[in-house]
Amino acid sequence: MNEVLIVGSVALDSVETPVGRIDNALGGAATYGSIAASLFAPVHLVGVVGEDFPQEHLDFLKKRNVDLAGLQIIKGGNTFRWKGDYNADLNQAVTHETQLGVFEHFEPKLPENYRDAQYVFLANINPELQLSTLEQVKQPKLVLCDTMNLWINIAREHVLEVFRRVDIAVLNDGEARLLTDQGNIIAAGRQLLDLGPRAIIIKKGEHGALMFSKGEHPASLSEGIDIFSAPSYPLEQVVDPTGAGDSFAGAFIGYLAKTDDLSMQNLRRAVVYGSVVASTTVQDFSTASLAALTPDSIAYRYGYVREMSKF
Amino acid sequence: MNEVLIVGSVALDSVETPVGRIDNALGGAATYGSIAASLFAPVHLVGVVGEDFPQEHLDFLKKRNVDLAGLQIIKGGNTFRWKGDYNADLNQAVTHETQLGVFEHFEPKLPENYRDAQYVFLANINPELQLSTLEQVKQPKLVLCDTMNLWINIAREHVLEVFRRVDIAVLNDGEARLLTDQGNIIAAGRQLLDLGPRAIIIKKGEHGALMFSKGEHPASLSEGIDIFSAPSYPLEQVVDPTGAGDSFAGAFIGYLAKTDDLSMQNLRRAVVYGSVVASTTVQDFSTASLAALTPDSIAYRYGYVREMSKF
Repeated sequence: MNEVLIVGSVALDSVETPVGRIDNALGGAATYGSIAASLFAPVHLVGVVGEDFPQEHLDFLKKRNVDLAGLQIIKGGNTFRWKGDYNADLNQAVTHETQLGVFEHFEPKLPENYRDAQYVFLANINPELQLSTLEQVKQPKLVLCDTMNLWINIAREHVLEVFRRVDIAVLNDGEARLLTDQGNIIAAGRQLLDLGPRAIIIKKGEHGALMFSKGEHPASLSEGIDIFSAPSYPLEQVVDPTGAGDSFAGAFIGYLAKTDDLSMQNLRRAVVYGSVVASTTVQDFSTASLAALTPDSIAYRYGYVREMSKF
Repeated sequence: MNEVLIVGSVALDSVETPVGRIDNALGGAATYGSIAASLFAPVHLVGVVGEDFPQEHLDFLKKRNVDLAGLQIIKGGNTFRWKGDYNADLNQAVTHETQLGVFEHFEPKLPENYRDAQYVFLANINPELQLSTLEQVKQPKLVLCDTMNLWINIAREHVLEVFRRVDIAVLNDGEARLLTDQGNIIAAGRQLLDLGPRAIIIKKGEHGALMFSKGEHPASLSEGIDIFSAPSYPLEQVVDPTGAGDSFAGAFIGYLAKTDDLSMQNLRRAVVYGSVVASTTVQDFSTASLAALTPDSIAYRYGYVREMSKF
């Protein structure tokens, strides 16, 4: 079985949404990504926490088949903490406070056995650390990256460099517009594809996701681009959108590692698994509903989304 | 061959978008709806214009298999004129000027042979006029309605009454939220379905369309609701969104009239035809690109959308 190597933030989040609030709960891009990926394949996690990081979270991750040999625990250090809330439509997080803690001087160091990883997810983190991780892996079959507005704003060139070196990049529609200066999401997808990745996945929250790849469609307006459109699983209430994108990416690469099939058909299925798992994440605060997700529930939602799109 | 009866506005529009502008061009909900429907079936148009309405537009509609026996031409009257522009993301029109003209005292009067219509589209117009049209038709197989923010704001009870009496209602996401006070579009769809229609179609512009119907899916969050999600045909540039929704609805009911098949499977196909025709409308000002649409182009885009959604 292929493992998934994931590098990114492990955090303690304090989040307020129109539905309620939670303080110092398990969070971080690599955390959500790892839990989601572990639904499909074993995970090797690379990250850092302080001595204040609760043991119960470590135990929980280990039980989920997440290997923590690459998780640095800094004596006397403080875990990265993020505090934020969401506007009424739940699409945009507003950051109130960021305490970097041990994250400030973090340098990913891959244990020797991690360097053979075939499936690598560079979760949301400083793009220079994403690049440093890439230097340490030998010959992966698939590298996936994510990013966020912060890095696009303060380290655009490094973000672009990461995009040039990965197989697939995943980002949300706002980030795609910011990174390309294209207001139109189709034009943004095309421009990002031109950077070199085999596929670009643009997540649109409740509106689903689009995957762009080089293809054979001779459409006058999408020449040479194949587009896959996946609807999102319909929800009547979102409790907390935190970690949706990380869960999406984690499930996406977890499914690919499990199936070890990089055909575009299988990439499409992986997008739907990503979308389905993300739809679960947002139904409760922190990782509560994601952690409770069962194979039956995944299969049910996958089937529902398939029925939703048939005509 | 079943005809489609369409009642609604026929107008002269002056529109400015980020791409350019046009003055006193052919417009109106019933106009766009009729041209779109005429791609699939003959149309009977019910509306009103003034003596100032250019003869070339009348000739054009007649040539398209749009019967104008129900179009009142008021001597000395002025055609309804609308002037507006769009904000940068092209999702919301801002009205600068509305000259009702002959529209102010319009009362739909159906020629005798129109009263047997099997397929009826109550395009965007005062809901009391939609109801008056309904009184005049005998026993239609399918009645479709549209509406807009204006009527929801000033005549909500009449809009709800129309919704209770039609088979299918089509509206955009903003209108659905406004009519239900539900921020969540899935909850809005469920609530509108509870008014009685067999199906509710919520258009989301570039994000495609959702069709809600009563179904058998036992999903915990969408209990008893079938949802169809249609992606929109991908466009890298929108020139003028005016008439997109009217074209969608016209093509939708035109396709149903042509096929005379009201199964949910066929309704799904009709939604995709609606979406495909609307995607053409927005590629030029006024009715220019809609009028130039060919069966080959419709078939191409329909096939593209089918490929886009397969997994």
